[in-house]
Amino acid sequence: MSSSAEYIEEYKRVILPSTISENEDKVLCKGDGVWVWDEDGKKYFDAASQVSMVNIGHNHPKLISWTRKYYAKAAREKIITSSINTDCYARSFLTVDGERMEISPPGLQRRLAQHTFGPENTICFPDVTGALGANDALRYFRTVTGRPYWLTFEKAFHGRHGEARDSSDSNPIHWNEAERDHHAYRLPYPETKEGLKACLEKLKSLNLKVFSYLLYEPVQGEGGGMRVGRYIKEVEDFLKTEGVYSISDEIQAGMGRCGEWFGYQALGLNPDAIVLGKSLGVIVPVSCFVLKKGINDLYNFPHGKISGTFPGYNAGMAAANFVMRIYEEEKIVENARNLSPEFGKMLKNAIEPYDILNLHNMRLPSLKVDGIGLYRSIKFYDKNGIPDPKMRDLVNLKLRELGVWTYPASKSFPAIRFTPPLVSTQADLKFLTDAIYQATRILYQS
Amino acid sequence: MSSSAEYIEEYKRVILPSTISENEDKVLCKGDGVWVWDEDGKKYFDAASQVSMVNIGHNHPKLISWTRKYYAKAAREKIITSSINTDCYARSFLTVDGERMEISPPGLQRRLAQHTFGPENTICFPDVTGALGANDALRYFRTVTGRPYWLTFEKAFHGRHGEARDSSDSNPIHWNEAERDHHAYRLPYPETKEGLKACLEKLKSLNLKVFSYLLYEPVQGEGGGMRVGRYIKEVEDFLKTEGVYSISDEIQAGMGRCGEWFGYQALGLNPDAIVLGKSLGVIVPVSCFVLKKGINDLYNFPHGKISGTFPGYNAGMAAANFVMRIYEEEKIVENARNLSPEFGKMLKNAIEPYDILNLHNMRLPSLKVDGIGLYRSIKFYDKNGIPDPKMRDLVNLKLRELGVWTYPASKSFPAIRFTPPLVSTQADLKFLTDAIYQATRILYQS
Repeated sequence: MSSSAEYIEEYKRVILPSTISENEDKVLCKGDGVWVWDEDGKKYFDAASQVSMVNIGHNHPKLISWTRKYYAKAAREKIITSSINTDCYARSFLTVDGERMEISPPGLQRRLAQHTFGPENTICFPDVTGALGANDALRYFRTVTGRPYWLTFEKAFHGRHGEARDSSDSNPIHWNEAERDHHAYRLPYPETKEGLKACLEKLKSLNLKVFSYLLYEPVQGEGGGMRVGRYIKEVEDFLKTEGVYSISDEIQAGMGRCGEWFGYQALGLNPDAIVLGKSLGVIVPVSCFVLKKGINDLYNFPHGKISGTFPGYNAGMAAANFVMRIYEEEKIVENARNLSPEFGKMLKNAIEPYDILNLHNMRLPSLKVDGIGLYRSIKFYDKNGIPDPKMRDLVNLKLRELGVWTYPASKSFPAIRFTPPLVSTQADLKFLTDAIYQATRILYQS
Repeated sequence: MSSSAEYIEEYKRVILPSTISENEDKVLCKGDGVWVWDEDGKKYFDAASQVSMVNIGHNHPKLISWTRKYYAKAAREKIITSSINTDCYARSFLTVDGERMEISPPGLQRRLAQHTFGPENTICFPDVTGALGANDALRYFRTVTGRPYWLTFEKAFHGRHGEARDSSDSNPIHWNEAERDHHAYRLPYPETKEGLKACLEKLKSLNLKVFSYLLYEPVQGEGGGMRVGRYIKEVEDFLKTEGVYSISDEIQAGMGRCGEWFGYQALGLNPDAIVLGKSLGVIVPVSCFVLKKGINDLYNFPHGKISGTFPGYNAGMAAANFVMRIYEEEKIVENARNLSPEFGKMLKNAIEPYDILNLHNMRLPSLKVDGIGLYRSIKFYDKNGIPDPKMRDLVNLKLRELGVWTYPASKSFPAIRFTPPLVSTQADLKFLTDAIYQATRILYQS
């Protein structure tokens, strides 16, 4: 048995199953920029960016170098590195490449404020995982409004714990479907005009005074396979007239993924708060609830309502501050913006013979490109136009062979997500889309 | 305004309030072993170990050195450092001080198994925060038993998110008391024989077939101010005959805090699973759900039920593996075990004139030492024997002056917790208890 096979065998014996595919037979050991390697030495383009957690690429030289400087300073000057920041104040400073960085929650707020609600209007609460950040946001709005119910969308995914889980429309993550919290009310996702109509009709049938907020993904990544919420703006505007706030879940869609800093900006939305995660920390878990000031007086929100052991922890603040600075210095968002339209076209060209628009009436398998920015998917339909996960799995397997690392969107959902690192070049995206062209050829044979 | 005062002013303006005291006026900037420093250069003995997250002390030389080696190897060989491990397998190796360490979830399992249920009988699921680890455990047992209800104790604290929050008996963490999940049923904590009797009576009045497990803290840290569950064993034994499992929350009580590796061992308990957090990661958030094998067939537990973005993330596995090795090499638990009885005596001597046993009938303020191991508290009662938070706050303030860093247990609870780092020496504990002696003198004057 190979060393990787032995490892996987041991892993399955001693670690409870999570979401790693039961058929997975590779073990990754190396990552450099847009590339990852398995233990057999095979190299792959990371077309998943590990589901948007590695937007700046693997082992970004600055992130690793500054992290090394951080721990070198800890060894030398004993700056505080333990995971404290909710029972006491703690901060440190690190001068790298000519800038004296303040490693602290306000240090992070200063950077985030520039790209969200502005320096004077941005309140933050850094937490650890995206779900926890979402919970903080949801608890904030429920507390300050006193309204117990909230709105989410069908096929939403916001995380696996607490209110974020209750907001998600995904069966496996509930211990038992009957046990859901029924304060989350699900609306049709306004991807199309018809969706918008259905959504507004539902809303008009409700007593909206009991709802505190709408939680949305600008683009539905996990559950929707990159459905774009093109008409969320109309829903948001309608709800504002009823005193219902809105929160944009930017855990996957944010941090440049949609071609702007945040998904809500790419779609021209107007949320009262956003939630960040994933690519904010890259090497360690960091999330952030970012709130527009003036929504409610900050001091109405009681002490102790949101907290925890690790919110604002030092190594997390270091990583997030470093990542934000890398975004700024390396113009990560600009690169994503520049590549976005081209990437859409390249994907469409790669699947051209299967394009759903061309072939839908010809009774051949058909494929459809969805999403925006570098946040895309290809969806697979059989010759009757029925979603076909088998086609998806075949193509996914072939992509692996061709050196492209991807994940199917979910067990049943007929999509492969393509979320290349935002530091990709046009040549990288050509490598990827050439592979997609080749991989989809196998559908002729099946 | 001093730089610290400016920082705190900015913090309050831009960061939502968590559990930092509204009166806190110090900013920590340096930590070395058992000591921390504020920005004015004042040095404190960390008698809180930042609420048991820094059991091995601040900036432990091996932890910082090995972490530096980890990132140096990342720079050199591009070992994978991004936060992946739930959608694919990833591991790395690092040779430090003659040992080739496997940085991976099974690598952590191997170390934890030695000290819990044994190499052949230990299943793990690493997660990020203690609350998330508890949620994983709770979801596991609810899923495999199919029983919707569970048991917890009055004054319990298990975390602030999801089922862990529902298990906690703490008002401020619920957005609204009326909105609690009522599947968690609260029992009297069996601290005393009377408590045990009350607990068993409650249990006998219930249909236990609907309960999946009992979740307990061996010692109630947060809510109970170090109440010791001396009779949990009897409750656990009784429940086992009814098919109700038990889970020990070792987030604070574990990792040597009670003088043994885990609190359940210090009290001779027999849980089916434990949950770790806090001191398992020290510099980054890492938790772990540790399950006794054979409880249920592992493969009955479906894929996708527990997962997330960060469980098993690489930097977390590095930190937890390093920490476990430091515990082993430096005999951290043995040191805690050796210091434990002496620490209890020293605390009792320090408050002797106020000892509740001596003075209760004399109508003077009285103090009581609670807890076990290096997991202790002093509780404050006025001359009528009524819990007195004001006395507590006076003593806490005086301790700060004397160079001791502590936190009150909660706004209303009349205790100060003393959880010195497990790397303390007898001299350190003498410094601490001398300060306590001095600080409690002020009660004469009030």
